[in-house]
This record gives sequence, structure tokens and C-alpha cells, in this order.
Amino acid sequence: MCQLLGMNANTATDLVFSFTGFARRAEEHKDGFGIAFFEGAGVRLFVDAQSASTSPVAQMVRSYPIRSSHIVAHIRKATQGAVLLENTHPFVRELWGRYWVFAHNGNLVDFHPRLHAAFRPVGSTDSERAFCWLMQELAKAHASVPSVAELTTTLAELAPIAARHGTFNFMLSNGQALWAHCSTHLHYVERQHPFGRAKLQDEDMSIDFATVTTPDDRVAIVVTEPLTQDEPWTAMKPGELKVFVDGKAVR
Amino acid sequence: MCQLLGMNANTATDLVFSFTGFARRAEEHKDGFGIAFFEGAGVRLFVDAQSASTSPVAQMVRSYPIRSSHIVAHIRKATQGAVLLENTHPFVRELWGRYWVFAHNGNLVDFHPRLHAAFRPVGSTDSERAFCWLMQELAKAHASVPSVAELTTTLAELAPIAARHGTFNFMLSNGQALWAHCSTHLHYVERQHPFGRAKLQDEDMSIDFATVTTPDDRVAIVVTEPLTQDEPWTAMKPGELKVFVDGKAVR
Repeated sequence: MCQLLGMNANTATDLVFSFTGFARRAEEHKDGFGIAFFEGAGVRLFVDAQSASTSPVAQMVRSYPIRSSHIVAHIRKATQGAVLLENTHPFVRELWGRYWVFAHNGNLVDFHPRLHAAFRPVGSTDSERAFCWLMQELAKAHASVPSVAELTTTLAELAPIAARHGTFNFMLSNGQALWAHCSTHLHYVERQHPFGRAKLQDEDMSIDFATVTTPDDRVAIVVTEPLTQDEPWTAMKPGELKVFVDGKAVR
Repeated sequence: MCQLLGMNANTATDLVFSFTGFARRAEEHKDGFGIAFFEGAGVRLFVDAQSASTSPVAQMVRSYPIRSSHIVAHIRKATQGAVLLENTHPFVRELWGRYWVFAHNGNLVDFHPRLHAAFRPVGSTDSERAFCWLMQELAKAHASVPSVAELTTTLAELAPIAARHGTFNFMLSNGQALWAHCSTHLHYVERQHPFGRAKLQDEDMSIDFATVTTPDDRVAIVVTEPLTQDEPWTAMKPGELKVFVDGKAVR
């Protein structure tokens, strides 16, 4: 299985602290990693078929504070699809003149939807197939880019269809919102004023968020397993779809 | 204007030497840079709205020898579109289950083709608009991924249509071939056995390719202006479209 990490914030924020703890888990999840940062409508995607614990690309991500309001990261332990760059999450596609970023944790068995439209997988994972199918169905359901609320309604109808085939924890972002769907394991925390201290679970590293934020900042972190010891993480329920906008769960 | 750099090789090759000389030109072309590496069917795209001469991402690319058989790089001096990540070349789209990478040097005036299909620009450049149009027209002309020769025929019909609107030097790759279209300035060199020494134009750095190659290796480099002093660069002609496969011009 893989692990997912997502961030949604009301102001451009770097993920160095969280990514450092998350990348530590790559010693076990060593079949590649990827991280996508929205900057405005643009996306920077860093992927490597090497482990995040040894990859020079991951080393750069840990040391270069790229600021973004929407980030999706993934460390991979291969279930379906060989350890190849084209099978490395997150995947990116364009729809309605916006980029969409998707990462999946889980395993979908016998999920072979008919992909007759403009979205075809490049690699051989169940995950990219599910993403292409989601994009195709969103494109069918809406003529042009709908509101976040409308997209959420459509995604809440689509997610259970794929989830019937197995475990479908996923994160999806278009730079306006972060959607998180839970089949088994996803946790989130919303950080806001007054900010406190947090200590990573996986590494001896602490941060006092009060020293790196302003009172107006709001940041939501969504992750497979809680990253810190001293914050009020909420476990999502099986079948639950959440959408985060401006650093806050709005559904 | 911007500058383009492309590589096509019959074996995975790193571009550290050429990119070092190319990035030096970014002191003038400072409005962002990007480089895309195919690895099998997968693509790694590194983009930064910072100059390649100062960007930490470019620094990593200069020091981490990523080996690839198809590379497209671009340093930007903005003509149309603000200095934003979404306007930074190369651009990537998926068609027929393959990734396509495109970078443009030039300026297309009043080029607003009807984009009714699955490819829409995210940013505001003439370049991304031209790429979306090329993808749309390729998708219309062929039902599934055609041969390199068929693609070349279609591209040779399409390129002059956009080129009527201005300067249209571009590079396009799908990981099988590298296409280069010249409106004004593009040069290429084919390196093969017996390999010799080369010295960069832009920096005091030499390489003896014989020490880093095998006799079977073949590498073609395509670039706006020749990168080295002592190699037989060929200037492409206005309106010429070349396609490089396995390190060799085949048209």
C-alpha cells in the first residue's frame, strides 16, 4: 500500500516540515514518490521512481521551501504496475483549461471502465485508470468548469462506483480545492490561530507554527496516518468524501 | 525571445554538459525555465518561473545526471503571457495514452484557432495555444497513435498554418521521436563514433565524449544557437521540419 499527503491552505505555505516526516515513511514505501504543487493555475510535479528517502529530487523538495496553497504527495509501495516513472503518482491531466492532480492509496480489483474519451492511462496502474475515468465522467457531467460545490456533488456520486472494486483512498485537486475520499485510512487536521507546537511522529523534529504564521493563516493537512503527536487529528470514515477550501473542511 | 534545447539519443544519456552551457544563457533569458525528460513512457518535468541561472531546481538538474533518450528544455524571455508558472514551457498533454511535450521559441500574432476538443490552454501564451491546437489536429487526423512517419507527415502539414502568424520554432516529443520545426533559428549536431572533444561556447568547460560513450551510442542535439565551438552544427532552414529517432535525423 502507499501513503498520501495533501495540503490545502488559504495562503501559500511550504510543506517542508510535513514532507520531512512523510518522506521518512518512504523507507518502507520505497517504490517511488511524487509531489505536486499548484502555483496559481500552474503545477510543479516532482516524481522519481526512487524512494523519497534517497532520491535527490526528494532531497531538493525537503530543502527548497516551495510555497503553495494546494499540494498533493504520494509515496508508493507497488501493488499493481511495475516500478516505473509512468506509474508514479500524482498523475496530472488538463480539463476545462485547468490542471487536475490525483493520487491514490489502495487497490482496485477488476476495475476496467470503458475509456472512450480524451483521457487514457499512460502507465499500467489501477490508480491512473481510475483517475482517467473520473476525469472522463466529470467532463461528461459538466460542460465547463463548475463550482466546487457542484464538483463535490458529482465526485460523491462517482467515488462509490470505483470503491466497489476495492480500496479507494484518493486525493484530487484542481488548485481551487482539495478533495479527499476515504475507504480505509485518511486523517486530517486544521491548523489555525492560535497556532501551537507540533512534533513529528517519524523524526525528532518540532515546529512552533506560531513563529511561521500570521493570525489569518489557515492550513488543512490530510494524510494516511497522523504526522504529528500533539495535534487533534480527525479520522475520516469509510465512504466519506471531504473537500477543503481555504484551509478548512467545507463538507 | 526564448531559447530551445532538445536531445534525442539511441540510449539513455544525461544532458548535464549541454544544459550547463544552455542555462548560462538564462542570465539574459530570465523569465523561467523548464526541462522535460522522458523515462520510458513517463515524463519528469521540472519547471520554475525563476531564471535557470539562479533556480534551485535548475541547480539540481545541473548536478543530478538524469538519463533519458528524449529531452526538451526551454529558457524563457516573455513575449506573450506574464511570468507565471502556468506560462512556463515545456507544456505536457496526454494523447492516445502517451505524453507529449512541447516548447516554442517565437511569437505568433493573432493566432486564435478554434479549440473545441479536449485540449485547452491553462496559461495565456500563444505557445500553449499552438500546442493545444497541434494536439487537437493530430487527434482529428489519426484514430490512435500512428507511426513516426505518419505523424511527421501530419505535422509538416500543420506547422505552416501556425507559422503564417509569426515565428514558430518548436520542439515536440512523445518519447519515440523528437520533432523540430524551424522558422528562424535552430541548429543541430549528430554525435556518433568516433567521438571527439567539445568545448562550450558559454562557459569554460570541455568534455571528451569518447570517455563517456560506447561506440554504439548516437546522440542528436538541437538548439537555438550552437552550444559548442568545435562541432559541425547544421543550421536548419526556415520552414524545415526535422524528426530525430535513435540519435539521428531521419527527415
